[in-house]
Amino acid sequence: MGRTLDLEGMRHGTDLVKRGFARMQKGGVVMDVTTAEEARVAEDAGAVAVMALERVPADLRSQGGVARMSAPEVIEEIIDTVTIPVMAKARIGHFVEAQLLEELGVDMIDESEVLTPADPFFHIDKRDFEVPFVCGATNLGQAVRRIWEGAAMIRTKGEAGTGNIVEAVRHRRMLRDAIDRVQRMDKDGLETLAERFAKPYERLRETVEEQQALTIDHGENVFAEQSIEEIQDGLLDVLLDIHQEGRLPVVDFAAGGIATPADAALMMQLGNDGVFVGSGIFKSQTPAPRARAIVEATTHFEASDTIVDVSKNLGEAMSGQNMEDIPKEAQLALRGE
Amino acid sequence: MGRTLDLEGMRHGTDLVKRGFARMQKGGVVMDVTTAEEARVAEDAGAVAVMALERVPADLRSQGGVARMSAPEVIEEIIDTVTIPVMAKARIGHFVEAQLLEELGVDMIDESEVLTPADPFFHIDKRDFEVPFVCGATNLGQAVRRIWEGAAMIRTKGEAGTGNIVEAVRHRRMLRDAIDRVQRMDKDGLETLAERFAKPYERLRETVEEQQALTIDHGENVFAEQSIEEIQDGLLDVLLDIHQEGRLPVVDFAAGGIATPADAALMMQLGNDGVFVGSGIFKSQTPAPRARAIVEATTHFEASDTIVDVSKNLGEAMSGQNMEDIPKEAQLALRGE
Repeated sequence: MGRTLDLEGMRHGTDLVKRGFARMQKGGVVMDVTTAEEARVAEDAGAVAVMALERVPADLRSQGGVARMSAPEVIEEIIDTVTIPVMAKARIGHFVEAQLLEELGVDMIDESEVLTPADPFFHIDKRDFEVPFVCGATNLGQAVRRIWEGAAMIRTKGEAGTGNIVEAVRHRRMLRDAIDRVQRMDKDGLETLAERFAKPYERLRETVEEQQALTIDHGENVFAEQSIEEIQDGLLDVLLDIHQEGRLPVVDFAAGGIATPADAALMMQLGNDGVFVGSGIFKSQTPAPRARAIVEATTHFEASDTIVDVSKNLGEAMSGQNMEDIPKEAQLALRGE
Repeated sequence: MGRTLDLEGMRHGTDLVKRGFARMQKGGVVMDVTTAEEARVAEDAGAVAVMALERVPADLRSQGGVARMSAPEVIEEIIDTVTIPVMAKARIGHFVEAQLLEELGVDMIDESEVLTPADPFFHIDKRDFEVPFVCGATNLGQAVRRIWEGAAMIRTKGEAGTGNIVEAVRHRRMLRDAIDRVQRMDKDGLETLAERFAKPYERLRETVEEQQALTIDHGENVFAEQSIEEIQDGLLDVLLDIHQEGRLPVVDFAAGGIATPADAALMMQLGNDGVFVGSGIFKSQTPAPRARAIVEATTHFEASDTIVDVSKNLGEAMSGQNMEDIPKEAQLALRGE
């Protein structure tokens, strides 16, 4: 089974560059910031990049309302303030927010379930952009679809804003287990899986058929003007790559619920390439030292002595939420197939 | 049926030592403490060990939020303050918190459902550690799984923080009844039981199969890189030991809801080897005398006259909660299979 993914992925000529940028973040911590001031704290703490967003996830949860792309002037101010890369969040499927972020010159776009989804059927066709994207995934199917759509980095969804690591661990373990299975599959199995993983792209057509009784013409365009067969072939390429490499062909970060240095080290020991931290820092008692401690624990994720040292005197971690207290409809992980 | 457990359990060379330490706590009371000051009260009252945790369970219940390992500087201060062993709690499945506690030099780790679970699928592989672990169990299956994973002590889960003994009694009675049945089983019966008890280790695989329609290849790794057959064999060894001894092969404490000297004596008369007391002491009107009284009642658990004497003039016990007032999703006993 040949490694065809890169040839296919490079059709816009920038896939290597995009993934290369993502790879440069490896081993590092990306921190959510809502202001230039917070961005400075993050940079000083040793973040590899900052993620600009309107409000941290914990506030999005408690305040409710529609969460959107940050105001452009805030993003510009953050870009002008720090020297590290600046990422920013766009709503799932809101390709115009992504266009604006590209125009603003951000270094990476997070098509994020933390914001309110803008398209119930499709994610952004990320291959149309020069700027690289990161997307969340709770399982292998989501990861493969996002990579085929052009994502240069995958992260667990977790449950952002809860300060609770359990869902990030769930997504990491499920992805890892599924990758192990893919490694043991033969070509037939991978083809069947690609067909199954292509299903969500047919949801628009199926909904129209159901509601309007309009016949489905199998093979018609479903995403980015591509036929379902072309999509299946694309997904199969990603699966072949995973089969061969035993890992995703892009870097794979942890996100959602990281609140302590130990949480960050846990995700790294579980095999993630780096971590995103949001509310865990700026909802704690002492953001700056905690941010530094999380960076240290991510770098030295197997050095218990170092992690113990940096974990001292950080004051209260963010209070957080148990999963039992979060109604299913408020779970961010269920956004975006 | 041979007694194979110790040979298997000793493969990391420390199982005897770990269980030996646990056995030294027999007949004693382990008290939850959140500060060095409380630890001193506990030691003065005659506790065999203290358990360091962030907040006592009653506060975790009423304040909500994610409950995590205590701050390292608090644990160090407690270790420096008392001469008795210091235990501390890690979240279920959070093996990095356990690594940090081992690094800090605690004498035993409680992988505890009182904290917010960190892994929805697996507990910590406790055989990887030199430090002994205690784990909660509501029934025999949980106890056998935890012992196979390397726990050196089992305790009832009870409902910590309620001041209500009923759930600890439930778990004790269920465990005792199940052990009686195991004693009467033949080899076939025990093998079938081992297979059944191994089921929860397959939950990750089953979830991946369900969600992703990826075929399960029976026999693949499920926990700590061991096959399901190896796991079943390991559980069978524990069951054979229980069959022969008529009790768990590790010490077996009561925990969760003990609030009076009579509660402690009740659990001892029901056959427990010792007790854990948490909120019951520091949420009562007179913590120091109550702590001493509970130690006395645990030591002289069949001497009604002594228990009457020590129960006098203790003021109000902790107020507590009835089980009817606790919604199912708030029950700690349901955490961790």
